[in-house]
Amino acid sequence: MSTPQDYIDEHKDHFLEELFDLLRIPSISTDSTKKEDIKSAAGFLADQLKKMELDTVKVFETPGNPIVFAEHAPHEDQPTVLVYGHYDVQPPDPEELWDTPPFEPTIKDGLIYARGASDDKGQAFTHVKAVESLLKTKGELPVNVKFILEGEEEIGSPNLVPFIEEHKDMLACDMVLISDTAMFAEDQPSITYGLRGLAYMEMEVVGPNRDLHSGVYGGAVENPANVLCEIIAKLKDEDGVIQIPGFYDKVVPLTEADREAFAALPFDEEEYKETLDIKAVHGEKGYSTLERAAGRPTLDVNGLWGGYQGEGAKTVLPSKANAKVSMRLVPDQDPKEIAKLFKDYVLSIAPDTVTVKVTEHHGGYAAVTDLEFYGLKAGAKAFEEVYEKEVLFSREGGSIPIVADFKRVLGVESILMGFGLTSNAIHSPNENFSVKDFYRGIKTSARFFELLPDFAE
Amino acid sequence: MSTPQDYIDEHKDHFLEELFDLLRIPSISTDSTKKEDIKSAAGFLADQLKKMELDTVKVFETPGNPIVFAEHAPHEDQPTVLVYGHYDVQPPDPEELWDTPPFEPTIKDGLIYARGASDDKGQAFTHVKAVESLLKTKGELPVNVKFILEGEEEIGSPNLVPFIEEHKDMLACDMVLISDTAMFAEDQPSITYGLRGLAYMEMEVVGPNRDLHSGVYGGAVENPANVLCEIIAKLKDEDGVIQIPGFYDKVVPLTEADREAFAALPFDEEEYKETLDIKAVHGEKGYSTLERAAGRPTLDVNGLWGGYQGEGAKTVLPSKANAKVSMRLVPDQDPKEIAKLFKDYVLSIAPDTVTVKVTEHHGGYAAVTDLEFYGLKAGAKAFEEVYEKEVLFSREGGSIPIVADFKRVLGVESILMGFGLTSNAIHSPNENFSVKDFYRGIKTSARFFELLPDFAE
Repeated sequence: MSTPQDYIDEHKDHFLEELFDLLRIPSISTDSTKKEDIKSAAGFLADQLKKMELDTVKVFETPGNPIVFAEHAPHEDQPTVLVYGHYDVQPPDPEELWDTPPFEPTIKDGLIYARGASDDKGQAFTHVKAVESLLKTKGELPVNVKFILEGEEEIGSPNLVPFIEEHKDMLACDMVLISDTAMFAEDQPSITYGLRGLAYMEMEVVGPNRDLHSGVYGGAVENPANVLCEIIAKLKDEDGVIQIPGFYDKVVPLTEADREAFAALPFDEEEYKETLDIKAVHGEKGYSTLERAAGRPTLDVNGLWGGYQGEGAKTVLPSKANAKVSMRLVPDQDPKEIAKLFKDYVLSIAPDTVTVKVTEHHGGYAAVTDLEFYGLKAGAKAFEEVYEKEVLFSREGGSIPIVADFKRVLGVESILMGFGLTSNAIHSPNENFSVKDFYRGIKTSARFFELLPDFAE
Repeated sequence: MSTPQDYIDEHKDHFLEELFDLLRIPSISTDSTKKEDIKSAAGFLADQLKKMELDTVKVFETPGNPIVFAEHAPHEDQPTVLVYGHYDVQPPDPEELWDTPPFEPTIKDGLIYARGASDDKGQAFTHVKAVESLLKTKGELPVNVKFILEGEEEIGSPNLVPFIEEHKDMLACDMVLISDTAMFAEDQPSITYGLRGLAYMEMEVVGPNRDLHSGVYGGAVENPANVLCEIIAKLKDEDGVIQIPGFYDKVVPLTEADREAFAALPFDEEEYKETLDIKAVHGEKGYSTLERAAGRPTLDVNGLWGGYQGEGAKTVLPSKANAKVSMRLVPDQDPKEIAKLFKDYVLSIAPDTVTVKVTEHHGGYAAVTDLEFYGLKAGAKAFEEVYEKEVLFSREGGSIPIVADFKRVLGVESILMGFGLTSNAIHSPNENFSVKDFYRGIKTSARFFELLPDFAE
């Protein structure tokens, strides 16, 4: 009888074909016209899980996109792992910057190019294939496994938390396993033990009731696009310090240990600048690039629009101007509270010549996992066996708000076992995922399930 | 034999049908895909002029859009009027805000709704029909008339000035007649004797070589959209004073007489605010609304874009952000010099973490016409006869750079005999032109030509 690792090697091509089928579905959750594709992606994963004859596979409808749940619990005395992933993806735009079509997966130089290749279809799928490989070769799983695969991660998981709260017993587990992060470097297995939180806002500055001729009205009527810029300019000072009153009140300062951990990570700033083609790094004064990117809160304009964007010169004084602005948070900032502080500050600095509307998109708490947790140690061991290299434990700048929610509702830690790379261009044109890491991911996941009973003792 | 005024009344419906044919042509000069429509509009006007059996009608090709020229000079001892107009139009976007399609002219409540209805097809066409009416009823024109109708006004007339310089003799005249402005109020004939100049700029702020995930990079890499806002915020202070060094150096201050003239104009600020649905007016401290809109220079963002503009929340740190910014100028500011000052200032305040590119679109000088000029007086008399109301002489905030060019190259004053209204929504959705003013425009033009010999003596 072959081992799970052999089985994975023998089914490489087939696994890749299956992933490609999933990647071809444009399950874009920010686009309300893609509801059918969302349904297809959920159905595809449910079918995959059903083929394995698990105890339960069910697609739950929600007020938004469906949640796929599966359970296989053969053991009373072994830990239960809840695998979380998401099958929705970011929009592909600007689509003209893709070298190959975003929903026609293409392999080039060992990389799978497609929207969702890394974030998160490719990574989530590794665990599905790991469970299949264990069942096909061992006849049974070494631990209990549950799956929860959602379709609204890219829009802030509005229906996931209510779902978890409502199905606490069904989802009861000893840990959550998530692959939705990047490794620190190529061939460098890494476990993310910290994530930033998020507060994502949108604002609209409204002036006159129609676009005006800038010659006839310019100088006499306030220009909403100028005002929008003035408001945004007042959100940060030149040292990268956020100017919203109270913003830093609950920030847990980086400890000496934190800063030493950041400093110990391998990082080449020259290479970083070269890869991004920037002349200099920039951020909050007094902190290193890694600290700025993962250990400190920040504020970014994510989108900006108003007036004429076409070719040539249209002399218009726009009726309104808009921006999307998000803030990354650290422990113990409260996203709801930060959203309110943002709104209060923006309204307080807005001139009374215009009307400013501030709305809140999704948000989430920052999360840091205990480094002594046995699940984390089992994960590190599995990683080291497959990648043949010591694991790095790092904090990341991105947000997976659900990690804080799992902790709060189910009372468990999450293991962030990322198989991606920062060069995967997630949320960007030409998103990709290494074919090699797709296979190593499946193998690492399978080994993790096999090793976990030993660490649990 | 009927008079020209009778002829105009008798041919009302036909004149309107002909104007509609012209308005149906989407001759958008900012859109490079509309070259055929540009050609059609020029051809339409040339055909109109050819039907009248003038001495000369010719379509001149240029490196850009064609220029329609016509001449009819029966008199050696009478003044020559050069009629200037433009057959190109602004883009219709945002097209979804139009109540009727922009290129399907529609009459509603006495207004013709169509892109170009007022700016400038409808207004320019009044002179074509006036000449026709004189020829059909009198058999000859009372003065010499030339036409120059261009197709690049909305992109800054890049080929018109070289054309005028090259054809100085052919275009020789005693005055230029232009209808491309608005009356001060409904039924209130007005001659614009002052116009602002223009310097229209575009800037691009470039950061990393691709859109980044704002979670992974936010805080460590400069965000071009934030930088763009910071630059724009530094262009004006809170009192509406432009911060570009040297910007005001050549500004001729408003004299006591200028300010009295502005103050004498009928203007209801409450109604102005109500019409625009704004809570307060805003502009340079120390000046009235009319002074701000026409007598003082200003700076406006005309367009702004960067990052994600779609539905929902995309956590992107955009690779670049752009803005179109224009400045309205007054005598004696030099548009080329102002463009350079703008560029120098923007580059001087741009941080070295990004690359900023500043490019110049079109520009033009401000112009003020001598109030004692006999052509202006003949125009006022014609206006008063047709509208039965005394003419107001006003300065306007918009720009017709060609007025300064005609003065410089041909040495003549321009008479700005506008038949539009500020409510015509030029450059905006639902542009319109009053049917009544279309007819009164034709009549006023015809009377102007008839009266001119008396004033010239």
